[in-house]
Amino acid sequence: MQRDPILLTPGPLTTTLRTKQAMLRDWGSWDAGFNAITARVCTRLLDIVHGHDSHVLVPLQGSGTFSVEAAVATLVPRDGQVLVLDNGAYCKRALRLTTMMGRRAQALRFAEDQAVSPQRLREQLAADPGISHVLMVHCETGTGVENPLAEVARVCEEAGKGLIVDAMSSFAALPIDARSLRFDALIAASGKCLEGVPGMGFVFIRRALLDACAGNSQSLAMDLHDQQRYLAQTGQWRFTPPTHVVAALDETLAQFIEAGGQPARLARYRDNCDALVQGLSALGLRPFLPAALQAPIIVTFHAPAHPAWRFQALYEATRRRGFILYPGKLTDVETFRVGCIGAIGRAEMQQAVQAVGEAMREIGVLPG
Amino acid sequence: MQRDPILLTPGPLTTTLRTKQAMLRDWGSWDAGFNAITARVCTRLLDIVHGHDSHVLVPLQGSGTFSVEAAVATLVPRDGQVLVLDNGAYCKRALRLTTMMGRRAQALRFAEDQAVSPQRLREQLAADPGISHVLMVHCETGTGVENPLAEVARVCEEAGKGLIVDAMSSFAALPIDARSLRFDALIAASGKCLEGVPGMGFVFIRRALLDACAGNSQSLAMDLHDQQRYLAQTGQWRFTPPTHVVAALDETLAQFIEAGGQPARLARYRDNCDALVQGLSALGLRPFLPAALQAPIIVTFHAPAHPAWRFQALYEATRRRGFILYPGKLTDVETFRVGCIGAIGRAEMQQAVQAVGEAMREIGVLPG
Repeated sequence: MQRDPILLTPGPLTTTLRTKQAMLRDWGSWDAGFNAITARVCTRLLDIVHGHDSHVLVPLQGSGTFSVEAAVATLVPRDGQVLVLDNGAYCKRALRLTTMMGRRAQALRFAEDQAVSPQRLREQLAADPGISHVLMVHCETGTGVENPLAEVARVCEEAGKGLIVDAMSSFAALPIDARSLRFDALIAASGKCLEGVPGMGFVFIRRALLDACAGNSQSLAMDLHDQQRYLAQTGQWRFTPPTHVVAALDETLAQFIEAGGQPARLARYRDNCDALVQGLSALGLRPFLPAALQAPIIVTFHAPAHPAWRFQALYEATRRRGFILYPGKLTDVETFRVGCIGAIGRAEMQQAVQAVGEAMREIGVLPG
Repeated sequence: MQRDPILLTPGPLTTTLRTKQAMLRDWGSWDAGFNAITARVCTRLLDIVHGHDSHVLVPLQGSGTFSVEAAVATLVPRDGQVLVLDNGAYCKRALRLTTMMGRRAQALRFAEDQAVSPQRLREQLAADPGISHVLMVHCETGTGVENPLAEVARVCEEAGKGLIVDAMSSFAALPIDARSLRFDALIAASGKCLEGVPGMGFVFIRRALLDACAGNSQSLAMDLHDQQRYLAQTGQWRFTPPTHVVAALDETLAQFIEAGGQPARLARYRDNCDALVQGLSALGLRPFLPAALQAPIIVTFHAPAHPAWRFQALYEATRRRGFILYPGKLTDVETFRVGCIGAIGRAEMQQAVQAVGEAMREIGVLPG
């Protein structure tokens, strides 16, 4: 049977047919109809974080990493100094892009199976008063760990430091409230927990900082100040927008609201995560993270200590049963990952568990 | 009647339903099925310029401008010096992004209604031996003028200078042959003459230069050397690809080949352009460019000298009849633009001319 597999990946992920069908129209990027879509998307994204009073929303073409780089390039002055709270692969990527663009940057390192520590951050900020900005990843997709956003934000506010949050894998699922949480920039993308298709990111920027951002970016494409100003003046994107991706995001946002918004999404993902962890644990697979640190977004499992284990073989045997897994991203420990996000529920997760079990028997990791 | 309008714009443009329907599937970015799509797209793009022996193809997320910036950032060393041949808005944008990233750059300016001059380029290169790279726009979308690519390439080769070509609006329609034309980088995008949807660009880079490009880019997202190496090693994009946009490009490339490739596309666009210019000329509208300089991609028309003329009014009256025009981009002369590209033929162009005529009568520029 030829059927589209279900993606148990952290984006691109499985979207609804309704979301995809929104791409069956061509939009002129200068047309009032498309401008209305852009405006609606921006408004609804601001709704999600209750950010209308405090922040502007700046969309950007490209993958989520483009938006992370753009946020750093736009928010951090050329003589700024960035401290990256590092407990995983996406933290390291953020450090690398910050260093490459010539900003001074350093990492405060934590183990990959631990959350970052607000207390150690406080000490580091006290020890190095030259730090201007802190960069953190809310949910580190490399492992699935949830970092303590509210506590980190409080430490940054007390110390008078800017905070840039990569919320790529958490936005729209975990609660983020700009009324109680102070951040300079927060970054996410279309193709993650919003369940749109990939091709654009977006950055919430604190209004009070906008003017001071002029001239920070050395990249024209990544200059969110310029992007925001043009959008505010014309209602249009500065350069050709990914029109079909934007239309799909608009459609998936409508479904997000209909389904009950962020609390409902979190509840569904938690239920997916529970079904996944229970099911795979019953097959003898062990989660990498302690339950208290596990965000219900993506779960890392240890590879079983069995001579027949090969991830690629499990991947292919599971794929033939209609489910796509995700490889691990840890250097020291052999792991693989399973996403809990996308347009799927408990039934699909249980079918996925069933498929993984059969695949493990097929490749000889479980007795047949 | 609610019908999708036809886009007479230089991208996003009207695509076939078959192209859009290719977006009705979700693809895992790590999956062999998607890697095969990426590989096929890269191969077919190289086919179009006969570039397999001389060049690699590096796709990049984002709009076409992102790829222009990435090409400059990757190809031009930090101590390089770029001469931009400037006869329009997209040349000026290329100059701006080059300067912003800190490369030395200067413009060799020409009038907007003239092609750039290979002879003046030769003189400038002789006068300023510090110039390392020349950047030109093949078809300047701001006006529609076709610049003499072959002659400029010859001058650069003789002078031993690198050549970076923005072929955004010409690629796949105008002939470009890497076997007879020497260029370091040539840039285009999915949503122009290939008639895909917008959301990604791509850069042909001369193989012999690849190794020397390592470390040039100050931007991680825009580092085409890193992007190429990762793709060559893994078959995957370095960061999340716009999977649906890539699938649509794959589908539109299949149709491009079925229809006869670049020569057939050029013939159709020429026919579109002829029908457009003849039809609008008969309504008293005058093209901005002399016919010899006019690429059959986008045509700039002078605004008629009539007191009732307002582009916005014409735009809306034409849009109500099912066609979307494009505003002008010249600062000194009032103009508007009409694209000849997209999944449209002579019949649609004649209908568009009919619609513009009725719209001109409606707004009072032509007698009723």
